[in-house]
Amino acid sequence: MTYCVGLLLDAGMVLLSDTRTNAGLDHISSYRKMFSFEMPGERVIAILTAGSLSVTQATLAKLQEAIENPEATPESSILMAPTMLKVAEIVGETLWSVRDANDQRLKTNGNFGAASMIVAGQRKGGRMRMFLVYPEGNFIEATEDTPFLQIGEHKYGKPILDRIVRPGTSIEDGEKAVLLSMDSTLRSNLSVGMPLDLAVIHNDECKVGFQRRIEPGDADFRRMSDGWSKALRSSFAKIPLHVQG
Amino acid sequence: MTYCVGLLLDAGMVLLSDTRTNAGLDHISSYRKMFSFEMPGERVIAILTAGSLSVTQATLAKLQEAIENPEATPESSILMAPTMLKVAEIVGETLWSVRDANDQRLKTNGNFGAASMIVAGQRKGGRMRMFLVYPEGNFIEATEDTPFLQIGEHKYGKPILDRIVRPGTSIEDGEKAVLLSMDSTLRSNLSVGMPLDLAVIHNDECKVGFQRRIEPGDADFRRMSDGWSKALRSSFAKIPLHVQG
Repeated sequence: MTYCVGLLLDAGMVLLSDTRTNAGLDHISSYRKMFSFEMPGERVIAILTAGSLSVTQATLAKLQEAIENPEATPESSILMAPTMLKVAEIVGETLWSVRDANDQRLKTNGNFGAASMIVAGQRKGGRMRMFLVYPEGNFIEATEDTPFLQIGEHKYGKPILDRIVRPGTSIEDGEKAVLLSMDSTLRSNLSVGMPLDLAVIHNDECKVGFQRRIEPGDADFRRMSDGWSKALRSSFAKIPLHVQG
Repeated sequence: MTYCVGLLLDAGMVLLSDTRTNAGLDHISSYRKMFSFEMPGERVIAILTAGSLSVTQATLAKLQEAIENPEATPESSILMAPTMLKVAEIVGETLWSVRDANDQRLKTNGNFGAASMIVAGQRKGGRMRMFLVYPEGNFIEATEDTPFLQIGEHKYGKPILDRIVRPGTSIEDGEKAVLLSMDSTLRSNLSVGMPLDLAVIHNDECKVGFQRRIEPGDADFRRMSDGWSKALRSSFAKIPLHVQG
């Protein structure tokens, strides 16, 4: 499994992904699931991936090829696309075409491979936008009402986001929220695992402003995680129980 | 959907279920999902249900019929079964036979109906035991290492149980934990809904010791839920963010 989350805040976008990949329980590896494409000051695009590794890797490779193609057009290259909506369309089309081609063969086995992606970015003069691209290539967009998107094992980490994240949430609180959301997921699902990739894109900077890989045993992350556990337990102890008696 | 949870604590068993049932989004009703069978002081059995209502209702009706049958035997009646293990077996067999019979017809539609159950109880002279019965009638048992079982929409409410619930947890803290676990689930999934049924079976009492229906708008539950939200937000604000800078 995977857990990736993106927040679309007024001040910027906060992105977090894990790196665990498994084919069965006896074949576990680490693969990056966060990718960025930049023309600093002009355009920034980040893509988070979940699902079949053969599908996500081939999709990213094809997106990169299309960028480097000397005959690239605004219809084919995510760095030339006129809008973030068009970027999401290109990602969706590429994802679907890879999957569709794979499935022609996989179905002979009764198998299939699917993947989903979060596409977040901004081009100069436009606003920040964030999309969740489904395995079939269609997509939805984060809005004021729902300023976060999740892919993969999303349920364990959703309650804290539901309670905390609003468009006006600060970048710092956004980082805290995604890390604590990931912490709950790591505790509850073994197939989501460290290291983590954290990135921040500030509004109107059109570049990745901050990026950090958080390794297993990272002292900062552990301090935050332990602090949260302690705070939760002490809050729990303080809540009065009214229902009985 | 449904969310039901049972804790197997040293001091007793704490059970909580919601009541929302839906067939599609435009057919939503309330049905009890917690049932108890008692011979006070001799034997107590509680059953929580999730899944197809036609399967769970028919299973419960058949269990009741078997109890009332003048020719009931320890092989057929959960109130005569020699052990809690045998009780779980009877429930599992009944569940499977109902489902199997239904599916013979449902499959003509390409449909099927499945259900799972938590079976918790104690007989005089035995210890408290709690089982999760799967749709196929097989089951697992709660242990010291994993002193809680969940059915239905279980992920949103699992992190708080993972953090709080141990065999030595008090009944009062257990009640608090299941109610806050349900609170997170209610917030994140519309298809789980009030009213709630809460019950406590104290160790060696062989009867349901406490039972309460919590209606929508219940002032006690709201006070607890609001207190928890406030405590979470204030804990969140206090956790220092270390990862950036």
